[in-house]
Amino acid sequence: MTATVLVLSGPNLNLLGERQPEIYGSRTLDEHVAAARAAGEERGLCVEDLQSNSESELVDAIQGARGRCEAIVINAGAFTHYAWSISDALASFEGIVVELHVSNPNAREPWRHTSVVAPVADGMVAGFGGFGYELAIVAVARMLEGRNP
Amino acid sequence: MTATVLVLSGPNLNLLGERQPEIYGSRTLDEHVAAARAAGEERGLCVEDLQSNSESELVDAIQGARGRCEAIVINAGAFTHYAWSISDALASFEGIVVELHVSNPNAREPWRHTSVVAPVADGMVAGFGGFGYELAIVAVARMLEGRNP
Amino acid sequence: MTATVLVLSGPNLNLLGERQPEIYGSRTLDEHVAAARAAGEERGLCVEDLQSNSESELVDAIQGARGRCEAIVINAGAFTHYAWSISDALASFEGIVVELHVSNPNAREPWRHTSVVAPVADGMVAGFGGFGYELAIVAVARMLEGRNP
Amino acid sequence: MTATVLVLSGPNLNLLGERQPEIYGSRTLDEHVAAARAAGEERGLCVEDLQSNSESELVDAIQGARGRCEAIVINAGAFTHYAWSISDALASFEGIVVELHVSNPNAREPWRHTSVVAPVADGMVAGFGGFGYELAIVAVARMLEGRNP
Amino acid sequence: MTATVLVLSGPNLNLLGERQPEIYGSRTLDEHVAAARAAGEERGLCVEDLQSNSESELVDAIQGARGRCEAIVINAGAFTHYAWSISDALASFEGIVVELHVSNPNAREPWRHTSVVAPVADGMVAGFGGFGYELAIVAVARMLEGRNP
Amino acid sequence: MTATVLVLSGPNLNLLGERQPEIYGSRTLDEHVAAARAAGEERGLCVEDLQSNSESELVDAIQGARGRCEAIVINAGAFTHYAWSISDALASFEGIVVELHVSNPNAREPWRHTSVVAPVADGMVAGFGGFGYELAIVAVARMLEGRNP
Amino acid sequence: MTATVLVLSGPNLNLLGERQPEIYGSRTLDEHVAAARAAGEERGLCVEDLQSNSESELVDAIQGARGRCEAIVINAGAFTHYAWSISDALASFEGIVVELHVSNPNAREPWRHTSVVAPVADGMVAGFGGFGYELAIVAVARMLEGRNP
Amino acid sequence: MTATVLVLSGPNLNLLGERQPEIYGSRTLDEHVAAARAAGEERGLCVEDLQSNSESELVDAIQGARGRCEAIVINAGAFTHYAWSISDALASFEGIVVELHVSNPNAREPWRHTSVVAPVADGMVAGFGGFGYELAIVAVARMLEGRNP
Amino acid sequence: MTATVLVLSGPNLNLLGERQPEIYGSRTLDEHVAAARAAGEERGLCVEDLQSNSESELVDAIQGARGRCEAIVINAGAFTHYAWSISDALASFEGIVVELHVSNPNAREPWRHTSVVAPVADGMVAGFGGFGYELAIVAVARMLEGRNP
Amino acid sequence: MTATVLVLSGPNLNLLGERQPEIYGSRTLDEHVAAARAAGEERGLCVEDLQSNSESELVDAIQGARGRCEAIVINAGAFTHYAWSISDALASFEGIVVELHVSNPNAREPWRHTSVVAPVADGMVAGFGGFGYELAIVAVARMLEGRNP
Amino acid sequence: MTATVLVLSGPNLNLLGERQPEIYGSRTLDEHVAAARAAGEERGLCVEDLQSNSESELVDAIQGARGRCEAIVINAGAFTHYAWSISDALASFEGIVVELHVSNPNAREPWRHTSVVAPVADGMVAGFGGFGYELAIVAVARMLEGRNP
Amino acid sequence: MTATVLVLSGPNLNLLGERQPEIYGSRTLDEHVAAARAAGEERGLCVEDLQSNSESELVDAIQGARGRCEAIVINAGAFTHYAWSISDALASFEGIVVELHVSNPNAREPWRHTSVVAPVADGMVAGFGGFGYELAIVAVARMLEGRNP
Repeated sequence: MTATVLVLSGPNLNLLGERQPEIYGSRTLDEHVAAARAAGEERGLCVEDLQSNSESELVDAIQGARGRCEAIVINAGAFTHYAWSISDALASFEGIVVELHVSNPNAREPWRHTSVVAPVADGMVAGFGGFGYELAIVAVARMLEGRNP
Repeated sequence: MTATVLVLSGPNLNLLGERQPEIYGSRTLDEHVAAARAAGEERGLCVEDLQSNSESELVDAIQGARGRCEAIVINAGAFTHYAWSISDALASFEGIVVELHVSNPNAREPWRHTSVVAPVADGMVAGFGGFGYELAIVAVARMLEGRNP
Repeated sequence: MTATVLVLSGPNLNLLGERQPEIYGSRTLDEHVAAARAAGEERGLCVEDLQSNSESELVDAIQGARGRCEAIVINAGAFTHYAWSISDALASFEGIVVELHVSNPNAREPWRHTSVVAPVADGMVAGFGGFGYELAIVAVARMLEGRNP
Repeated sequence: MTATVLVLSGPNLNLLGERQPEIYGSRTLDEHVAAARAAGEERGLCVEDLQSNSESELVDAIQGARGRCEAIVINAGAFTHYAWSISDALASFEGIVVELHVSNPNAREPWRHTSVVAPVADGMVAGFGGFGYELAIVAVARMLEGRNP
Repeated sequence: MTATVLVLSGPNLNLLGERQPEIYGSRTLDEHVAAARAAGEERGLCVEDLQSNSESELVDAIQGARGRCEAIVINAGAFTHYAWSISDALASFEGIVVELHVSNPNAREPWRHTSVVAPVADGMVAGFGGFGYELAIVAVARMLEGRNP
Repeated sequence: MTATVLVLSGPNLNLLGERQPEIYGSRTLDEHVAAARAAGEERGLCVEDLQSNSESELVDAIQGARGRCEAIVINAGAFTHYAWSISDALASFEGIVVELHVSNPNAREPWRHTSVVAPVADGMVAGFGGFGYELAIVAVARMLEGRNP
Repeated sequence: MTATVLVLSGPNLNLLGERQPEIYGSRTLDEHVAAARAAGEERGLCVEDLQSNSESELVDAIQGARGRCEAIVINAGAFTHYAWSISDALASFEGIVVELHVSNPNAREPWRHTSVVAPVADGMVAGFGGFGYELAIVAVARMLEGRNP
Repeated sequence: MTATVLVLSGPNLNLLGERQPEIYGSRTLDEHVAAARAAGEERGLCVEDLQSNSESELVDAIQGARGRCEAIVINAGAFTHYAWSISDALASFEGIVVELHVSNPNAREPWRHTSVVAPVADGMVAGFGGFGYELAIVAVARMLEGRNP
Repeated sequence: MTATVLVLSGPNLNLLGERQPEIYGSRTLDEHVAAARAAGEERGLCVEDLQSNSESELVDAIQGARGRCEAIVINAGAFTHYAWSISDALASFEGIVVELHVSNPNAREPWRHTSVVAPVADGMVAGFGGFGYELAIVAVARMLEGRNP
Repeated sequence: MTATVLVLSGPNLNLLGERQPEIYGSRTLDEHVAAARAAGEERGLCVEDLQSNSESELVDAIQGARGRCEAIVINAGAFTHYAWSISDALASFEGIVVELHVSNPNAREPWRHTSVVAPVADGMVAGFGGFGYELAIVAVARMLEGRNP
Repeated sequence: MTATVLVLSGPNLNLLGERQPEIYGSRTLDEHVAAARAAGEERGLCVEDLQSNSESELVDAIQGARGRCEAIVINAGAFTHYAWSISDALASFEGIVVELHVSNPNAREPWRHTSVVAPVADGMVAGFGGFGYELAIVAVARMLEGRNP
Repeated sequence: MTATVLVLSGPNLNLLGERQPEIYGSRTLDEHVAAARAAGEERGLCVEDLQSNSESELVDAIQGARGRCEAIVINAGAFTHYAWSISDALASFEGIVVELHVSNPNAREPWRHTSVVAPVADGMVAGFGGFGYELAIVAVARMLEGRNP
């Protein structure tokens, strides 16, 4: 039976590929999600995705995943560092939660060192650019195997 | 041409598989490294490894990787949070650095929220148990591709 | 003449009754608001209510209560701890403001100890579960009596 | 069978009604406690009360309530912010604890933002003037119902 | 050739002129923006404007200004102090950014001393009431001259 | 009747135009003050100015402006961040006070984020280079109009 | 008509003259109070005094001075640094309050740098040994003259 | 010649044996003190004891031990963390001071990590349950031997 | 033989009597110093005085008092809170140092709670308005008696 | 059956008896350990010991005690305050852990107030000089009795 | 061609040799500067010097060295810890900057651990008494060699 | 008679000359130590040296210098900022201690601003590159002269 994974991307991640391509590469968010979806399919996972600049849309999406998805991969962008409503929503989600970042926030400005996602996340992937989306799916697949051997 | 990746594990990681197997699983560090090595071989990477409880042995190993290895994956254990000599050694390493943790330190005690590795790491993988070793190798392989297309 | 009280509930409070019923009880937000409305009617108060996961919708609702409602009871959920736009909106409201929490935030994680509502609130009710909605209405009724004897 | 509630008031609360009546109203502590007692009687609760300027008398009273009272309502006055012996005493009390304040301490000076009662309290009522005594009894009655349906 | 300037106003600024007119004056936001537009026209600038209580609408507007506007004047209201998604959006904007405040936040409550806009702003105007809108446009005109002499 | 504005510049501002012209432009402080004076004359303001590296000379000048000037524009340079004697002197001045900075201190080192001028300033202009002198005069003119319509 | 001044001494001040006479001198608290009383009589002041190691006795004494004494001189000893119930009691006293210390607390350990008395004190005398009692009375006499010329 | 040791126990320690016996054991304070007394007698020490919930009674007891006892063993309970009047009293005691705790405060809540006793204590025993009373007496005996060989 | 006391007043104290007379009274600094001088003469003290807005002039004056004056009374105004060169100068002075303030800095803004004078002062007088000058002289006289009985 | 206790001493403790004998006494570490061993033998405990200046040797020793020793007494010297690898190693040890210090670290420099051992220690003995080794063994014996009655 | 080095000494350094000769030695500032000058001459350096208690005189001197001196050695005394106008002046100096201290500030009071000179200094010499002046010149000579080989 | 100086270099200093030669120069640690040795010989000092990446080897070396060397020059590298066992070892050394750094740590990252060596060091030399080794020896020679004139 396939499991469903919801891949969420927060504010400004719709600019991936456009903004500072020398740093973030020239692939868009859609391309990264597509790669993640392909990796999911290889492992029997159905990947859904949503990008939003809106905190409440992300909260709604997380609530909507309750009882329907087995895992959430969330790159909350700047929301990572203050949007506790997302933290509370994730806390009400009974599946696996993976925190994802394109860059390595702990190596950047101090305000990026606090994460509202971390206290409710099972794992974290950061700093591998857009490839992190694919990597997070691989990790989720393995964690689900651990739970359903 | 194969690239070489050095996988370093810090203090108390030799107890993996023995200590609290209900949390960390029953596989040992050797088994995790073996899986990482296999994943590396599939991707043309030669994986070397060292576990040590000694800060200076880890510094020596990092220095020894200069000019010889293309990447270091380091799970510095408790050293992550205070052993700045490891940070300085990594800063002198010109290759890729991936910070690895078996658990998710940002979701644990406050003293585990500081990392001396983060400021000099390209990426981070945390919270996926011993499977993180394999995942980090996959990530390194992809980053090396990015550099040597 | 009846006075109008606006009862606002912030993010994730729509999950009341569903999430962790052993802690929060099995009654839903609607049931708690209905009890509050009944308590209001006994005391000549008209109770309006809104639940939203969106900070701007809450700000809009507070602005809309200006010059129309005599009191606001607000359970801002996670917004309590960082959403200063709600604080500014409440500051522009000339009526009574009661801060409400289902649990006791001062007895929980440190980030829940800061409240953006407190500096602009007349009173606070916390920790009585969903019954707090009814209790807050009782308190508002008494405060309005004090103002209009 | 009636339950017994102990209502404790800390230092300087004996001045209620005398000090700054334009703020705190002209009713005395005795009048507020009498109203609380009446509210208790309506709900089958026996209300005992004690006001003391002495930390040890409050600790003694809390200890004396062990195994004899079902709930404590405590307005610890300035002791709220530093008198940890009261916190430890409350922690040894197996019944319901409600923290009460006449004003809203979180809206006042920073030293009033710390509470030694909060970590051991089930609920909190603040900012409703002396009427809070009555409100706290109403809350206790409802909580006891919840426990003994 | 005319340059375009986007003037953004955040939460609760729609209340200008209504709220505390003795402090903020009796002119509305629309009147202030009109004066700014007139000042812009004198200097060959086309002024667009948006007021929103929604963080995501402001982020969307900033993203929409990329490659189309030469400057953004932003009075982010309470968002100034915590809404890092706006900061990240502004960082992706290649034109001039001016931070605007009607009052002087550094002379007010401590939580208003932190600005998420400041690290990505070229200049700041604060404390001149609604006239600041006009002043900011004058400043932008001069900065554009400096860039395109 | 003309009003008089005192324009004060603190330590190291005599180097404007000489130091790092690629950042601060090649115009000197005298040229910026001259432009401010011209802008003042257009608006019926008499502009006096003083640059000094000495804290006490600035305090003396502020005291000398009492009862004689209608406004002070002060770019206190590094004194902004610690010289409280200037803050006290400004507090004794009954006219308008505008804080001026050539760069944007909130976007620079942390020690530049504290301002002893802010608590006693009506408004602030920062980050517009030497042009800020002229802009501050325009702002003062408008504020004086508001006071003497 | 004579005014009455209450001189309060907190914990461990009964040891004056006994403890470390090389520092504090060999005169006892009684002798210092006697000198203060004499100084008061010369100036038409009646001096009452109380030493207590008990926080509640000091609170009781302050409450008892309401409406009966014109001034309180209080050397609260170690209570100065944490006993906020004394602060609240003094805040309810409508007369003059002088904070007194035998040594200079700001020149001692950091925990002695906080004073709960300071926010509610009119003046402070510290560091003059037991002679401070007399000096505080001289100061009170002068302040009362200022109020009743 | 026998030496005298005063064993002091602070607030809530009278509940030992009653409260949470699975943690603290089922022996009462009296039983622990009796064991300590027996251990003292074996070593030529006379053990006096006092338990009090009152800070001033503990201060009085410490003052009363001056010039009469050779050592004080003090388990100040919650007073340990804020009651500086006890610290000052102990500082005036010329004999040996041993800080005692039934549990290990440094392994508990942060507010228990500060000790007002530590700066004036010679030694500390913590975490050995009620047996610590006996252990502290053994330690005192040895320290007195060291002083009077 | 007469002793000499130097009375120093720092920045903005030359405005005493002019600024906010309803608070500080209508007497000037000269009048307060004259009263202090008279009080000194009664007690065989010669009082010299200097007011300066310049930190270096105060340092020079303190250095000039070495080996010539028996005491310094210093009201350093705003310099109290940051001008450590004055602290170092006072540390090199072998006589008595009294810190003086017209208002009570510990009851004002937080930045006024730090004193660079306190660590090198023997005593402190604060909050008695300009009368503090006279009071400080009385205190100095008594301290000199204590040293030269 | 005998239980085994491992007594560990960290960096610089090999200098006991040599360094500052007026403070630490003239007995060496070996003598203290011998006394501890004797005390252990009386109580049926086999005492092993190791002193090392190396963090990794201490970690190795702790790991080696797993499943072989019933208790560890550890005087980690300066490592107490930062060497978290020792903390993690102790956390993996299933027996009793007693933290030992020759002096009283809480009464010394602030950096000695943090302990990495405390969060994983059952009990603590500090400030009794080298005699603490013997005392810790007595405590361990009693705790083992409690576990194996 | 000779290079010129400006040696600056801040407040209270004119007391060297007089104040606490047992610590600082009996040689005066002039003697130390003379030794530095001699050391400079040996190495082809012309040494100029200035001591001042005035922050603005030091700023003026640093500005005057621009384009004329190759290096500045600055012992800013107490100004080191707060006088940011000196920091800004040094930042505008294009030559070598050496921070000098007679004592070792990092081993003294906490307020001496902050340096406004450090962020703009190339090197630092501290704790060698007046001999540091000579040592700093030796260092400057070597650094200039490095720049002009 | 010759004195002996031990020159210690901590972790990663063996990379001097190899790592970032454009910053640190192209000379190796051996060359710098050789220059220091030569400078020592000219002044009658015998220079021993050790580089180690191991904290315990440095502690051992410091202990080994007790009673045998007159001075230690220590460049502890990253250990400077956390390795308190080195601090304690140096505290037990009765000779001169000079702290040495190749770069200027106070001008770098915040974590490099703390030094465990500073509290036990007589002097400090920083920021002069490898030449600092020679300079430190010159300083030691002068300090020894001061002690043995």
